[in-house]
Amino acid sequence: MPVLSVSKILADIAAGADTPEAAVARSRALIAQKDGALHAFAALCPDDAAVTTQGPLAGIAVGVKDIFDTFDMPTGYGSPVYEGYRPASDAPIVAMARARGAHVIGKTATTELAFLQPATTVNPHDPAHTPGGSSSGSAAAIAAGMIPAAVGTQTGGSVIRPAAFCGIAGFKPSFRLFPSTGMKTFSWSLDTTGFFAASAQDVALFAALLSRRDLTADPLETAPRIGLYRTAVWNEASAEMRAAVENAAAIAARAGATVTELDEPADLSRGRDIHAMIQNYEAAISLGDDLARHRDALSPVLRNALEEGAGISPPDYDAARRIARHARKAATGLFDTVDVLLTPSAPGAAPRDLGQTGSALFNKLWTLTGNPCVNVPGLADAAGMPLGVQVVGRFGRDKLALRVAHWLEGRIAA
Amino acid sequence: MPVLSVSKILADIAAGADTPEAAVARSRALIAQKDGALHAFAALCPDDAAVTTQGPLAGIAVGVKDIFDTFDMPTGYGSPVYEGYRPASDAPIVAMARARGAHVIGKTATTELAFLQPATTVNPHDPAHTPGGSSSGSAAAIAAGMIPAAVGTQTGGSVIRPAAFCGIAGFKPSFRLFPSTGMKTFSWSLDTTGFFAASAQDVALFAALLSRRDLTADPLETAPRIGLYRTAVWNEASAEMRAAVENAAAIAARAGATVTELDEPADLSRGRDIHAMIQNYEAAISLGDDLARHRDALSPVLRNALEEGAGISPPDYDAARRIARHARKAATGLFDTVDVLLTPSAPGAAPRDLGQTGSALFNKLWTLTGNPCVNVPGLADAAGMPLGVQVVGRFGRDKLALRVAHWLEGRIAA
Repeated sequence: MPVLSVSKILADIAAGADTPEAAVARSRALIAQKDGALHAFAALCPDDAAVTTQGPLAGIAVGVKDIFDTFDMPTGYGSPVYEGYRPASDAPIVAMARARGAHVIGKTATTELAFLQPATTVNPHDPAHTPGGSSSGSAAAIAAGMIPAAVGTQTGGSVIRPAAFCGIAGFKPSFRLFPSTGMKTFSWSLDTTGFFAASAQDVALFAALLSRRDLTADPLETAPRIGLYRTAVWNEASAEMRAAVENAAAIAARAGATVTELDEPADLSRGRDIHAMIQNYEAAISLGDDLARHRDALSPVLRNALEEGAGISPPDYDAARRIARHARKAATGLFDTVDVLLTPSAPGAAPRDLGQTGSALFNKLWTLTGNPCVNVPGLADAAGMPLGVQVVGRFGRDKLALRVAHWLEGRIAA
Repeated sequence: MPVLSVSKILADIAAGADTPEAAVARSRALIAQKDGALHAFAALCPDDAAVTTQGPLAGIAVGVKDIFDTFDMPTGYGSPVYEGYRPASDAPIVAMARARGAHVIGKTATTELAFLQPATTVNPHDPAHTPGGSSSGSAAAIAAGMIPAAVGTQTGGSVIRPAAFCGIAGFKPSFRLFPSTGMKTFSWSLDTTGFFAASAQDVALFAALLSRRDLTADPLETAPRIGLYRTAVWNEASAEMRAAVENAAAIAARAGATVTELDEPADLSRGRDIHAMIQNYEAAISLGDDLARHRDALSPVLRNALEEGAGISPPDYDAARRIARHARKAATGLFDTVDVLLTPSAPGAAPRDLGQTGSALFNKLWTLTGNPCVNVPGLADAAGMPLGVQVVGRFGRDKLALRVAHWLEGRIAA
């Protein structure tokens, strides 16, 4: 599928071969042509919205997950409760994108309040398959080649999983590297703002220009040290996913990488197990008003999670937070001998089921620990559906994770 | 000044000597009678709003700082930009209060976007003096005896300082013990939800019933170990404030406390110095939309802080965050030999100046480190204006800090 590249658009504009207005107009036309079948967008900016020509992201049409507030577009949070809601302000990440010259072209479809109840978005590779969630529209819009960059969030696996299912790059930065306020909060310890683009290089460039941070995926000077990290839940991955991860490791080794197998420390396995407790306890508080006033308008899956969360006692939550702290420490220890970990992005390819968005089993641990993660596209199953592998970096070493992901993506493509 | 006590109202209701409806009706009448002169409230709930009779806080009329969203009252964030704004949801702390039976009787006045530009609220002890900020209305409403409990936030010194200036108890909990989402974020690393009530015992009871946490200020079994913590900025405190802190320490020692002088570690002094950099960098991102679209509607003091923040580079911000991390570690080390620290709540009594809200110099370090703080009322200057002393606890030891504050308040009153 032809995708739009952030790097290429910016290079063409810099070379005088393209203009911000023309690049944005192309995306607008592509959305008009393709989105009727995909439902990646929940709202679009007005047709006559001015296109900025100033700023390092001028000409980049960005889709923003409809869990973030925007002053100029309805913000529905994927829930009938908020249909047509018009916030007073842009979320900080939206204001940041506009300030850097990006064109916020529309709001991308999210699952209900960024939890599990699917949006109507379909997978651009096969409309019978889920695009993943909760950032469903952001991933699908990139994969379908409608826009070059999109913003999403991850509380369990909501950036890496849809990126993997849609065969594009997804980047979940270190916790709190980017602002996660001005969104409908689900879990304040976990909600993490992330990004989607065609390739690891593109997503890195977008994040770098957006944040004024040194995050570009510059070529590695030497081949990386990779920890093959099967996890304690390796057997939950499909045979094809396990083969894809091992294949990626073999490709990396052939290209000169040092590949070391790393067992999962018990502190990390325990961290994965208590993710849901932290998430649901906080969600019951965050969405307390929704549960109190709009109970019947919530999906059963969300209502049940919130009611379970409301039943967790503060001491149990505090104990879970202590386990999370230990997991963070153990995660840092993993990088004593390797640059990054290589692990599945999801249990397999996108399920052929629009009634679910797939599992966050291989993501939620890293959301809890706050480590940077990148989905590396390029592999596929027998049916041609994308299989994503995940590069996990040390906390705060986002640039290195992006560089290794870019390196690996190139070796896989070669 | 007669104040309303959370403990007494709940005890009277439990004994059948009062009812939730009557208690709330009294607050409503007191607001009608007194607030015309004080301007503590920015909005009131409808006259006919039902009073809950169920829940542990039934009968407690609560004022909520107008920086938090409410679905049933306008939420102006203390700024002309948001005048009349009606959010779609209650902030989590508001939903929590309602779920526990509290009656959210009104929104209390805040400085502009919880920064420095004063609200029109005056100090109930003398209307020529500032009530402090940014939680101006919350503190004044308690001090004037209109309501028994109020919610505020502290990013620099916005809970402890107004509590001190108004002569009531203020409690800034450990960072993230209470939810701080659903508010207009200023600085996500610093914004901390806190509470006001007549006494340390009352504020502890309110926080405990609100959170289902064991935070009540139970009597101490033995006299506490107190660290007299003058800080590196001791000379910035007025002579009367220095005398008040030393007086409180002497009272505590006479009542059996062990009082040890503790010098300020360099890591904590450095933490105080970089608070503004973290705050302003994050505020420039948080309020990026406000600066971009409503620049002229912001006060000069806020605009300047945001523009300064926008000029801070990510590496400088990251360096400041490392200093903050060291300060947190050093803060924990202080409690190896003492239960709490005793330090000024503010440089002195409330300035006789309605054009400012006073200084956060003695508060901002503890907001940065996330330690629990309690303002202990009871002392006053020669003119009769309250002088608050601050009890600081170890991170996560909120209950102990509240118990010692209650103990000290009793000794001072005796």
